[in-house]
Amino acid sequence: MHANVSQVAFLSVKNLLDLVTKVGIESFIKGLAKSIETDFKRWSLFDKSPRFAAHSPDGVIELMPTSDGHNFSFKYVNGHPKNTQKGLQTVTAFGVMADVDSGYPLLLSEMTVLTALRTGATSALMASYLAPANSQCMALIGNGAQSEFQAFSFRTLLGVNTLRLYDVDPKASQKCCANLIHHGFDVTICSSAEEAIQGADIITTCTADKRNATILTSDMIKDGVFINAIGGDCPGKTELDKALLLRADVFVEFEEQTRIEGDIQQLSHEFSVTEMHKVMNEKANGRTSGSQLTIFDGVGFAVEDFSALRYVYQLMKQHMPTKELELIATPENPRDLFSLFCTNNTMRKAG
Amino acid sequence: MHANVSQVAFLSVKNLLDLVTKVGIESFIKGLAKSIETDFKRWSLFDKSPRFAAHSPDGVIELMPTSDGHNFSFKYVNGHPKNTQKGLQTVTAFGVMADVDSGYPLLLSEMTVLTALRTGATSALMASYLAPANSQCMALIGNGAQSEFQAFSFRTLLGVNTLRLYDVDPKASQKCCANLIHHGFDVTICSSAEEAIQGADIITTCTADKRNATILTSDMIKDGVFINAIGGDCPGKTELDKALLLRADVFVEFEEQTRIEGDIQQLSHEFSVTEMHKVMNEKANGRTSGSQLTIFDGVGFAVEDFSALRYVYQLMKQHMPTKELELIATPENPRDLFSLFCTNNTMRKAG
Repeated sequence: MHANVSQVAFLSVKNLLDLVTKVGIESFIKGLAKSIETDFKRWSLFDKSPRFAAHSPDGVIELMPTSDGHNFSFKYVNGHPKNTQKGLQTVTAFGVMADVDSGYPLLLSEMTVLTALRTGATSALMASYLAPANSQCMALIGNGAQSEFQAFSFRTLLGVNTLRLYDVDPKASQKCCANLIHHGFDVTICSSAEEAIQGADIITTCTADKRNATILTSDMIKDGVFINAIGGDCPGKTELDKALLLRADVFVEFEEQTRIEGDIQQLSHEFSVTEMHKVMNEKANGRTSGSQLTIFDGVGFAVEDFSALRYVYQLMKQHMPTKELELIATPENPRDLFSLFCTNNTMRKAG
Repeated sequence: MHANVSQVAFLSVKNLLDLVTKVGIESFIKGLAKSIETDFKRWSLFDKSPRFAAHSPDGVIELMPTSDGHNFSFKYVNGHPKNTQKGLQTVTAFGVMADVDSGYPLLLSEMTVLTALRTGATSALMASYLAPANSQCMALIGNGAQSEFQAFSFRTLLGVNTLRLYDVDPKASQKCCANLIHHGFDVTICSSAEEAIQGADIITTCTADKRNATILTSDMIKDGVFINAIGGDCPGKTELDKALLLRADVFVEFEEQTRIEGDIQQLSHEFSVTEMHKVMNEKANGRTSGSQLTIFDGVGFAVEDFSALRYVYQLMKQHMPTKELELIATPENPRDLFSLFCTNNTMRKAG
């Protein structure tokens, strides 16, 4: 440690894995969902700026900032579909949380894994307001990187232990199944989406194709279920049939963003949707009857990342010796930045 | 090191101080100025997005992104004038450089000290096009955190070794003088701005007050000098008299931004200014005669931070064992993010 440096807490990939393992993944998800719910309940405090996006031929790099007036956070996240051809992740992420009063960063965290965890926790949290009472069985359509996180989150928050998997690539279903059966899930691999949704109270779509795909059509779906449509959304990427959306009560995180990125991009702005913070604050209804068809059109929002950073920052303090980065120079006399060179051991050689 | 992690190079405060010391501060500044000049010469390649700013009662947090299509960079920087009361820096910064093709971050660097270095290097680089031939003497008005970096940069690039210091706070001048005399500068502390500019070929204003101050008025300034006006600019903060600007040929980094933040915010948009990339690319004139009064109205631009990150990234590879951060999770199978928990030593306890 250097005397003239402010420390910034650092949560590496390994640190996060260790932290989740130490706390237990289900306890971690429970706490994370609580953190997200707390922040959705104080929705109006948050600065909801549009994300910054730098597009290139092969992908996009985004900065997603938000603030509650007390803390500021941003997430750096890329999306590069061709990365898998090079053995790289399509999406990677890291995030920073800072103190608004001083402007000093407090935490730098990996967010590739943390985003997967917060996406699962967000879905299950929304389901706790929107899914049928006593849901037992979930269809999981799309068995890629997000699928296991959905499974753990729904079991943790709703007690859903029976899973029916389907993916266009059978290897993905086998991978997902292998990861989950060791953890006590009752898993069935299905050969079509139609088969997967048989008997399901909850249908989660988390597919990755960047197309206007129609994973679920209206005629496939009976009344009374909850559809959790969270596949990596963007303009030009949908999972649900238009007629299905028109039949349902649709719930979103932040309407302005979901109109652009979500499944409802197919609908006119006349079609009414409900922001989930209103449901949580009892200013709008979630599920009101057993026969209601409810859809969460999730796209991922900066507030969820803020909640996740806030949560791991608290958790780190409780559960692990903080690893810190020498990221911020703080000379004793703020007007004497150059003095750092003079107090640095080897500086006498310079100049 | 963890098998399923991509490494991101990390340049801490101490690492940067060591790197500058190892290379030598003058050699470092020379290389940095060259990097900035290279990027200004390929100006049209850069994405010149407006910065993102989150304002709060006590300050602002900004994200300054840019890209040349090959690399993407952003700087996180705060501005909190009251921080000094708490013994904290008014401005702190860090930055990230990433690979556009994959979206992966390559480098995380401290940028409090690096910004000070790039600001000095930028000023001296501009001066190499705008200052009188064979300049010997520089007045340095405002002797705070930036002043020594200006002094080193002008000596490195222009051979200016004689300095005349003035600050409203004599302690600041004493601090600056003490830091510089050990390095062979010929330093005189003056008791007014008028006194400081006597005999100066170059006048640098780098004051910190957030006011529409008039550090230099037109009647004080004779023809033929170069004014380097770089004091921490923002809307409502100026250093130069309007009449002085109207008399001069004014040069800027990026006109759109300088019209808002720079000294020329006092002038109508009819007043013509020259962007420095045009001068460097010989599409516009810099200094054309000995009697010309030239002003660089510098505000700091994202491309300079990009150049600085690009430069230190190259330099680190040459001069020091790279310290790396486990920031980016990269499971062997990109669709099997959850496998990280299975390969993590302690995961068997989880779930």
